[in-house]
Amino acid sequence: MKKTHLFAPGPTPIPPEALLTMAHPILHHRTPEYEALLAEVREGLKVLFQTTEEVLLFAASGTGGMEAAVVNTLSPGEKALVIRGGKFGERWGEICQAYGVNFTPIDVPYGKAVDPGLVAAALAKDPQIAVVLSTYSETSTGVLHDIKAIAEAVRKTPTLLVVDAITSLGVMDVPMDDWGLDVVVAGSQKALMLPPGLAMVGVSRKAWTAVERSRLPKYYFDFAAEQKHLLKNQSRFTPAISLVVGLRETLRMIRSEGLPNIFRRHERLAAAMRAGITALGLELFAERPSPAVTAVLVPRGLDGGTIVKTLRTRHRVIIAGGQGSLKGKIFRLATMGYADSTDVVVALSALELTLAEVGYPVKLGDGIRAAQEVLQKQ
Amino acid sequence: MKKTHLFAPGPTPIPPEALLTMAHPILHHRTPEYEALLAEVREGLKVLFQTTEEVLLFAASGTGGMEAAVVNTLSPGEKALVIRGGKFGERWGEICQAYGVNFTPIDVPYGKAVDPGLVAAALAKDPQIAVVLSTYSETSTGVLHDIKAIAEAVRKTPTLLVVDAITSLGVMDVPMDDWGLDVVVAGSQKALMLPPGLAMVGVSRKAWTAVERSRLPKYYFDFAAEQKHLLKNQSRFTPAISLVVGLRETLRMIRSEGLPNIFRRHERLAAAMRAGITALGLELFAERPSPAVTAVLVPRGLDGGTIVKTLRTRHRVIIAGGQGSLKGKIFRLATMGYADSTDVVVALSALELTLAEVGYPVKLGDGIRAAQEVLQKQ
Repeated sequence: MKKTHLFAPGPTPIPPEALLTMAHPILHHRTPEYEALLAEVREGLKVLFQTTEEVLLFAASGTGGMEAAVVNTLSPGEKALVIRGGKFGERWGEICQAYGVNFTPIDVPYGKAVDPGLVAAALAKDPQIAVVLSTYSETSTGVLHDIKAIAEAVRKTPTLLVVDAITSLGVMDVPMDDWGLDVVVAGSQKALMLPPGLAMVGVSRKAWTAVERSRLPKYYFDFAAEQKHLLKNQSRFTPAISLVVGLRETLRMIRSEGLPNIFRRHERLAAAMRAGITALGLELFAERPSPAVTAVLVPRGLDGGTIVKTLRTRHRVIIAGGQGSLKGKIFRLATMGYADSTDVVVALSALELTLAEVGYPVKLGDGIRAAQEVLQKQ
Repeated sequence: MKKTHLFAPGPTPIPPEALLTMAHPILHHRTPEYEALLAEVREGLKVLFQTTEEVLLFAASGTGGMEAAVVNTLSPGEKALVIRGGKFGERWGEICQAYGVNFTPIDVPYGKAVDPGLVAAALAKDPQIAVVLSTYSETSTGVLHDIKAIAEAVRKTPTLLVVDAITSLGVMDVPMDDWGLDVVVAGSQKALMLPPGLAMVGVSRKAWTAVERSRLPKYYFDFAAEQKHLLKNQSRFTPAISLVVGLRETLRMIRSEGLPNIFRRHERLAAAMRAGITALGLELFAERPSPAVTAVLVPRGLDGGTIVKTLRTRHRVIIAGGQGSLKGKIFRLATMGYADSTDVVVALSALELTLAEVGYPVKLGDGIRAAQEVLQKQ
């Protein structure tokens, strides 16, 4: 017997409560039962996004939500500012390119967070920039950008701030209204503790003005058309019913634990993970680490792919390697969503054993002890 | 105790085998386990689509697959021919309009099937038409268009035939390669017996030529980029993992029953349903009825909404009403996917009781007997 443990930065483990509720016979979406369910989900999402505005739902993975954000806020010939510093920041640029949106990139070296001053300076230099597109937690590098500071720079201007919060919403504080975030994109398979396939998009009042005049082509991802249905507790097209059913359940769990407790839990688990990693003599990759995912530099002489594969094949522990040019150079561990302190212990134990197996000098238990000390304190 | 029965034309009932397999802990999509699963699904989809080409998967509902078909086969300034005769045919036109594609509609009165000769004539008159967009089974009217005959007209020309097979694939014969269908769009929540949220798109060799030169903007729904990943048993973005897991299960069920048996079963159930309906003195709406869904004219003096609501509230039987201008005028019953002869009996029994309750003269049991006679014969 070998239990599988999932520590990838998405999909993340799904609580049995959610799995079982989704295993019930399917609801039809044009019924009062589904409308009541959607009404509850709408309210729960407003709490989670910390907004008084509606949060739109799309049957799509997070990237679909990102594309929706671009095509609904921009028009041909308009300019965007794209903060790049990893695969997901780069994705904003790729979407702009696909739709013929001119964009200026702010390129940040992998592992570094963007200097919010650069965003303010770029906006001052070019007031024509209609939208700033940024990641909050950059999953590919483990970096947390300072979205609060970026938002302070952007909210004073007519420019919109669009945030990929796919691995930050439900992990850390993302007070959409308070900070003045204009479009916030989330996905079901991260801290929402569900299978992938449901994108959620919060849209500010300021953003709706841009949405109304946006002229990039859109149909499936049309904000205004979707909102019209949502206000009647309906969806324009057949929704991802089972995921919305699961979402009701996980939103109830989230409400019952309470957002501040959830944020503290994620911070505590990530701090313990980082303590364990560094106690093993390993180096963190991110200079401003995200509590969603811990990126670790592969020690000199070792291959990251071998570490990931050994963890999977010998220990049935699933983590993620590096992507693109980071392939083999980093590995990434997440304790996001349905995770507690036992998960940190399991992950570090498997990592210690794996490091020993691939020939890295490790004293078994050192990482776990460092993590325990953090967990004990908090 | 009141059991709920779902006879809507999507979502359709999900077999317990599929519900339970989707309730397992989620797989990570960047693992050999998932790749093996996707390899099996790829093969199963080729059997189902009756094609040697790949069938692309998108985390989206069927409409997302339709949009994908348009943006991947057309370029700005190109022309399409749209067969409209119901809400879903009209959707093709709406997508074209959203993307600035010029289109000529062939408008068919609701309830009628298109004359394939009109398609041939339109292509002869305007050889610039790049793509014909059609529904096979028009779910909103219960009509089955003669796609085989349309395909015969189109395949002789350089024009592509794009088919919304969302309620036909897995219900009736859709031999993609044999008939020369170029793009075939299907959705998970119909005869595939799964929750909504997974679109499947078969693409012919002829279509790939158009895809390569297509210049409509696309990112999330990019065929060529997705295909590149699929050939390695991967997906470009996070896939709808749980639905793909369920799809492996339902494809196994489909393979085990065999396509010809599945088509015969659907035809037999629909024939029994139609016999029951007409034995009650009700009139079918579609002149060329689809085996996927039976559309029934609401008798004079009655309201379709009341029939649908009475079935739902008094009998917990979920059917669909009419959409748009057909609201209140028709109702629709489906025995699609996970359905057998007992379902026809249950549906007709509830319908008979409902008709009696809303004041329509009905002799209880007459519809069921007529259905039984059909079921007995075949």
